[in-house]
Amino acid sequence: RIDGERLWDSLMEMAKIGPGVAGGNNRQTLTDADAEGRALFRRWCEAAGMTMAVDQMGNMFARREGTDPEALPVYVGSHLDTQPTGGKYDGVLGVLGGLEVIRSLNDLNIRTKHPIVVVNWTNEEGTRFAPAMLASGVFAGRHTLDWAYDRVDAAGKRFGDELERIGWKGDEPVGHRRMHAMFELHIEQGPILEAEGKDIGVVTHGQGLRWIECTITGKESHTGSTPMHMRRNAGRGLALITELVHEIAMKNQPNAVGAIGHVDVYPNSRNIIPGKVVCTVDMRTHILPKLNGMVEDFLARAPQLCEEIGVGFSAQIVGQFDPPAFDEGCVKTIRQAAERLGYSHMDIVSGAGHDACWINDVAPTAMIMCPCVDGLSHNEAEEISPEWAAAGTNVLFHAVVETAEI
Amino acid sequence: RIDGERLWDSLMEMAKIGPGVAGGNNRQTLTDADAEGRALFRRWCEAAGMTMAVDQMGNMFARREGTDPEALPVYVGSHLDTQPTGGKYDGVLGVLGGLEVIRSLNDLNIRTKHPIVVVNWTNEEGTRFAPAMLASGVFAGRHTLDWAYDRVDAAGKRFGDELERIGWKGDEPVGHRRMHAMFELHIEQGPILEAEGKDIGVVTHGQGLRWIECTITGKESHTGSTPMHMRRNAGRGLALITELVHEIAMKNQPNAVGAIGHVDVYPNSRNIIPGKVVCTVDMRTHILPKLNGMVEDFLARAPQLCEEIGVGFSAQIVGQFDPPAFDEGCVKTIRQAAERLGYSHMDIVSGAGHDACWINDVAPTAMIMCPCVDGLSHNEAEEISPEWAAAGTNVLFHAVVETAEI
Ligand SMILES: NC(=O)NCCC(=O)O
Ligand SMILES: NC(=O)NCCC(=O)O
Repeated sequence: RIDGERLWDSLMEMAKIGPGVAGGNNRQTLTDADAEGRALFRRWCEAAGMTMAVDQMGNMFARREGTDPEALPVYVGSHLDTQPTGGKYDGVLGVLGGLEVIRSLNDLNIRTKHPIVVVNWTNEEGTRFAPAMLASGVFAGRHTLDWAYDRVDAAGKRFGDELERIGWKGDEPVGHRRMHAMFELHIEQGPILEAEGKDIGVVTHGQGLRWIECTITGKESHTGSTPMHMRRNAGRGLALITELVHEIAMKNQPNAVGAIGHVDVYPNSRNIIPGKVVCTVDMRTHILPKLNGMVEDFLARAPQLCEEIGVGFSAQIVGQFDPPAFDEGCVKTIRQAAERLGYSHMDIVSGAGHDACWINDVAPTAMIMCPCVDGLSHNEAEEISPEWAAAGTNVLFHAVVETAEI
Repeated sequence: RIDGERLWDSLMEMAKIGPGVAGGNNRQTLTDADAEGRALFRRWCEAAGMTMAVDQMGNMFARREGTDPEALPVYVGSHLDTQPTGGKYDGVLGVLGGLEVIRSLNDLNIRTKHPIVVVNWTNEEGTRFAPAMLASGVFAGRHTLDWAYDRVDAAGKRFGDELERIGWKGDEPVGHRRMHAMFELHIEQGPILEAEGKDIGVVTHGQGLRWIECTITGKESHTGSTPMHMRRNAGRGLALITELVHEIAMKNQPNAVGAIGHVDVYPNSRNIIPGKVVCTVDMRTHILPKLNGMVEDFLARAPQLCEEIGVGFSAQIVGQFDPPAFDEGCVKTIRQAAERLGYSHMDIVSGAGHDACWINDVAPTAMIMCPCVDGLSHNEAEEISPEWAAAGTNVLFHAVVETAEI
């Protein structure tokens, strides 16, 4: 069994970097806080006897050698970046849980046949630079390196420039590693495990996702002196598509969600009718034809609704992945580990996207989930218990050792 | 008659300061560009033989002496600050039109009995620091100086600190001046004069205004893993009240308007359900009971709509004025001047708020309007013709000379 107290201490230590305003974290990707978090992780890995490599996307790979020089490594990890108002566990648990696996192996003096690599994937959250899971996506061949470098944040800064600025652009080409398997431990970010009273979620599938960036075009004019019939109010377009997204998600129940989380109104002045709104629709379900149907429905009706009130509508997909099905062998290994350790468990679909969803394309992959309080995530109040963290990490430990072979 | 070419040249010269991105201006109040525009105005006034005084709100008063040392001054002016994406004439025409009146009097060697003061009122637009017409409001006793100093912009900067920073905080107590009369020339910012083919609008009344800042409170959570029935999406609250404001304005036709121009969504991340929205409703009409009825209707129904979707609603009035009726004598002087000069004219209600609306409380006041292309204002594409500018300034010239007496 792993050392639950040491794991918790490390989680709390990492949470001191990039503190939020309400007890959580703001350690967004490629900020100074991200660089500081990375440096701490490197120190911890080196202290645990691992060697660190960094690729051209800033992905960090800490390696513990195996006994068989021919054997492919088993990967464990997740991400250290957070939302602007994020929690202390989303991503972090998977990285520091991986580190705890290594520390426990060291304590127990266990050497595995396969090397083990603990990985921190860059920009999983996708808040500052869309899309989410950007660097694992480049690793898995979904995006090119140049395209990733050209992503810009709201301030117009390029991903490539910011990666260089914080000093974490490595030399290693991205995606040239072959993996024996990959395991990601993550908090559920939803309410199901807690409601069902289960310690462990064995993730069999994930939801597919579409991010649709919409631009609604009206005409800036004076709120006081423009008669109602002459208005082209882009804010009303936003109102109509906000409700449309909700309606489509409800129509596709159960197992479908939809919302608009990102909204920019221009020029955003109290006495100017909005001339432009840019916003991003997020739609998900784990059933591919349903997902495509939701997007079609939206793209057919949104332009109509906007036209009826005299505003323009255009849309562009800025993030997407189809529902992944994880590797049956890895899933079974996780289920058996939970069983052997005596934890209650259930099969579950991941509501969120994860780096494991991309890596699943290029290596046998699976995920372990632990509950989180009230299903709350992407919120500074995100909370888990030390027992949940330890249970998930114990399952990770057993799954990794089983796969890396003693 | 005034020199239309000189007036136009001055407008174009001022427009070089704080250029926008699309041919207009971004010379928001208390920015470096505002300071630069003020300095140019002061140079021009001094070159025209006037003396400049600045009060503790940064209001600028350029004085041309009269022949009677006992006579109260006649004031002319408007504002030099602009919207973030504003036009070249909104406000500026009234200030530089006032300057052109003085220059023309100098050319013609005319001395008036009453002194004439050309005034630039600080922060008319109210975009950076709500409410609009802040400094003329303090002058007229609507707000206290301390309250005005404590207004903060979106970056958390205080009005008082920014006024000091740009070097335009004067010593003169605010509002201690007595006026014989005040005239403000302004572009219409609406489509009526152009549609009716009139050169001059004789402004008899203004619309009253209410700015209602609304805070909608939901719960930040993950867009992917939060089931639909557990969501508290503040963005949906925004959608519902956006349409509510529109519906209320339409129900109160004719002569009523309403919209939401300012919207901030928190935390504004693609994969976080909005936990909070702050936005400002703008409602106007020139009929006071109707205005109060609209606000009541909104404040009664908005909380209900929000409650039905599980989000909280609170509201606060952050700007307000009742519909002003301008001084009958001043209005008549303007109408007669237009008549005498052979311009087509009509009586009109001002759709926008103006400094004259406040000054009307403390001195006989009236306004002159000239058309603007397509009624477009608060837009960088705002446009007027040199002929319209000259016609309005000629009427201003005659009204001022008539009132200041030769
Ligand atoms: N786990 C997580 O929140 N990932 C971000 C990508 C997503 O929005 O699902
Ligand atoms: N003239 C003008 O745009 N003033 C700003 C105050 C208002 O919104 O009416």
